[in-house]
Amino acid sequence: MELNEALHRLKELQERQYAYGAGLNALNLDGDTVAPRDTNEGRALAMSILAGDWHRQFTSPETGELLNFLTEHQAELPATERRQTEVLKRDYDKSTRIPQEEFVAFQRLTSEANDIWKRAKESSDFAMFQPYLEKIVAYNIRFAAYYDPNKLPYDALLDEYERGATTAYLDDFFSALRKRVVPLLQAVRERPQIEDSFLHRRYPVEDQRKLSDYLMSVMGMDRNHSTIGETEHPFTLTFNNKDARITTHYYENDLASSMFSVIHESGHATYDMGVRDEYQYTCLANGVSMGIHESQSRFYENLIGRSRPFIEAIYPKVREIFPEQLADISSEQFWRAVNKAQPGLIRTEADELTYPLHIMVRYEIEKRLIDGSLKVADVPAEWNRLYKEYLGVDVPDDARGCLQDVHWAGGSIGYFPTYALGSAYGAQMLQRMEQDIDVWGPVGRGDLTQVTAWLRDKVHQYGGFLEPADVVRNACGTFDPNVYAEYLEKKFSALYGL
Amino acid sequence: MELNEALHRLKELQERQYAYGAGLNALNLDGDTVAPRDTNEGRALAMSILAGDWHRQFTSPETGELLNFLTEHQAELPATERRQTEVLKRDYDKSTRIPQEEFVAFQRLTSEANDIWKRAKESSDFAMFQPYLEKIVAYNIRFAAYYDPNKLPYDALLDEYERGATTAYLDDFFSALRKRVVPLLQAVRERPQIEDSFLHRRYPVEDQRKLSDYLMSVMGMDRNHSTIGETEHPFTLTFNNKDARITTHYYENDLASSMFSVIHESGHATYDMGVRDEYQYTCLANGVSMGIHESQSRFYENLIGRSRPFIEAIYPKVREIFPEQLADISSEQFWRAVNKAQPGLIRTEADELTYPLHIMVRYEIEKRLIDGSLKVADVPAEWNRLYKEYLGVDVPDDARGCLQDVHWAGGSIGYFPTYALGSAYGAQMLQRMEQDIDVWGPVGRGDLTQVTAWLRDKVHQYGGFLEPADVVRNACGTFDPNVYAEYLEKKFSALYGL
Repeated sequence: MELNEALHRLKELQERQYAYGAGLNALNLDGDTVAPRDTNEGRALAMSILAGDWHRQFTSPETGELLNFLTEHQAELPATERRQTEVLKRDYDKSTRIPQEEFVAFQRLTSEANDIWKRAKESSDFAMFQPYLEKIVAYNIRFAAYYDPNKLPYDALLDEYERGATTAYLDDFFSALRKRVVPLLQAVRERPQIEDSFLHRRYPVEDQRKLSDYLMSVMGMDRNHSTIGETEHPFTLTFNNKDARITTHYYENDLASSMFSVIHESGHATYDMGVRDEYQYTCLANGVSMGIHESQSRFYENLIGRSRPFIEAIYPKVREIFPEQLADISSEQFWRAVNKAQPGLIRTEADELTYPLHIMVRYEIEKRLIDGSLKVADVPAEWNRLYKEYLGVDVPDDARGCLQDVHWAGGSIGYFPTYALGSAYGAQMLQRMEQDIDVWGPVGRGDLTQVTAWLRDKVHQYGGFLEPADVVRNACGTFDPNVYAEYLEKKFSALYGL
Repeated sequence: MELNEALHRLKELQERQYAYGAGLNALNLDGDTVAPRDTNEGRALAMSILAGDWHRQFTSPETGELLNFLTEHQAELPATERRQTEVLKRDYDKSTRIPQEEFVAFQRLTSEANDIWKRAKESSDFAMFQPYLEKIVAYNIRFAAYYDPNKLPYDALLDEYERGATTAYLDDFFSALRKRVVPLLQAVRERPQIEDSFLHRRYPVEDQRKLSDYLMSVMGMDRNHSTIGETEHPFTLTFNNKDARITTHYYENDLASSMFSVIHESGHATYDMGVRDEYQYTCLANGVSMGIHESQSRFYENLIGRSRPFIEAIYPKVREIFPEQLADISSEQFWRAVNKAQPGLIRTEADELTYPLHIMVRYEIEKRLIDGSLKVADVPAEWNRLYKEYLGVDVPDDARGCLQDVHWAGGSIGYFPTYALGSAYGAQMLQRMEQDIDVWGPVGRGDLTQVTAWLRDKVHQYGGFLEPADVVRNACGTFDPNVYAEYLEKKFSALYGL
């Protein structure tokens, strides 16, 4: 094989990967947004076949030969193609360890499980979902052994979502946070509570849609290249850096829920849309890891979106859309309300302070499902016990308990910890950003261009070119979870007068 | 090869065909409905690769061997698999004559052309679209030679959309219609014209959406298995018999436009959703031809939808939705207005009587583009000349002229004649239906279940199992275009007191 031919085939391989991904994404997006309710069967069949066909192509001996050839010639490759080869070779080695039939069956299972999960959640019926989750856990355990039989199974799964993360690392991380966040939350709860009942007045969905449009424009989302849809659980789906879709969920009696999910998902989209053009239709086109992705979404949602200057900037428009509901509310009251710390049941509705505790519950449960010390049948009871222990709340039903998240139904175990890591990365990035540029002046005028330019320069543009740890190091030096804890202490001490 | 193994592979082949089709459909549907405007590049890339991959699989020597084996053993096959083999073998023989690169390039071209056409139409700029149409015509001429070098090129293309139709057959058909429809239209135009200005009062889109929901329910469309979206040009996209999507286009000053397009597209969907379960995910799952498909959509739209009993049945609800706009209008006035015969510019807005004349213009132009006697650059002038000759109208711009239809941009030449054939088939089916069952009693009560049951029994259930001509014969005997002409004469004589 000539090197030039190999480089041409590398490009084709990645374009093909893009194409199958786009087809599957379009089917997924359709299923989650506009498809009629009882149409899952045909979609699941199509998706399992397309995923299987791609998997077969990607894991073919020809792909292996190509990647081996390029690996042998890596010294001669341009930096971009060298990194692509490295990423694809790692994926290839992992994928070829999963037998084709198991891979296809798993795709079909998760497609069905997603549908069943929706219904189980609607009727708060864990028993309906249990057999699917049992199969998903069993598959994940088998897959972990395929990925790396020398690792703890849960570590092998973690590595899928955040390369380099391990149980030992996360145990330390969460234990550090627990030591500082739990006492902080207790101190907060002993103070007079923030009044936020006005956020639960009646906010018609139509008007909330207008607010979403406004927030997307503040976020700099170009509507010729992005849309917003409505789904049970908000998500971002990026086809490429010119085509990103976000979704949200409106609650008529909850203004903050959709508002901050729109900012959060726009943060994900902004990351993907900031990746260099040269990486498009290649394996480097998307954000490098879940943890880094969450660092960006939560950066916009919490560090910027829930800051005093940002609220000052957007509040006039919010009040213009909801003049009656907010007639008696000042921007300070609004800012305090959207930052109220209060243990609750729902992760996606959790405030910035209690959020990591929601993640800890899932982390503990996932770890034990995978090491076999917890049975799926016992998940509801264990979930409820941990919520009582960490957050002090009683879970009234599984819809608001262990059925609330889509992740497990989608087959993902080991994903949740990235949410907490992301917040910690974000806090450290903000610290560095404040040293580099004037963050709060422009933000206070509703101008996020400098913030986004900094993030694009330090994080977004690289896509998958750098490893997660290198992205953090590149943006803000060696990772230190204490920066995050300090950020939380400072912010909530000020809010609650500690 | 064992016969059982071959049958298993036949099933797999068709499921795979379904899967690639579903992926492409989902991308297409997304592109036409919810995708942001400037996102075509990535979608076109993905679609060209997926279409190419499927084409390569379908045209592989392995597929050829399988189909040859099954063809040799056809006497031993069950009827369904025998028919599947016949249909697939014919497609295979055709497809293997088109070189892979040309096929892929054509997919990419039409995807781009579709995007350009939208913009060209917006700015009424034929020159923008011309180079794309030139390429599309050139491809079609080459493809026709691949399909059947012994046929006239246009006949070979017609065969793609309506097997068995030829230029000679259509020349006769249109000439027969011209002899009876043109004088009928002239007679109609000498009578006092029907008052229909009230259809152009202001009908807010939101309320028209409610009417669409109502009409879909009258049509028996199960909303757990169907949706309605909004696009420039209405269409139906069926994933399978449990999942059909229709679209419409609302004009605030035109009540009838969307109303009858919803009935029309629901007619297409009703056909596809009536195909037997056993044919799903096979090559027999959809309607057998464009002509038969149009016979069903236009049956619902015109023969039922514009009938006096149907209008009587639905008018109370229409007036309930638009109480002010229709306060002074009786159901008879409404019925007469939606049947007004009036030469116009836009095919999709044409009445039942002038519609075939719109088709004749396109038929003449397509025929001559393909036989080389008309240049693409001359299409606008020729279009305008024929509209003057057949319909007596002056075309003010290409947006309302030769840029109005999506078909050519989508690569389809030879499709239009099926629209006129469909109406003729439908008229003959109605004649037979009236002999078999009480059509108008139930329709007058807004109950279409018997009509749909008859069509399902005679037409829908068979999907692609019968040839187009056999579907017509099975439903209503030997095809006779005079039944259609008589139907038009009778209806419009009554409406206009001839």
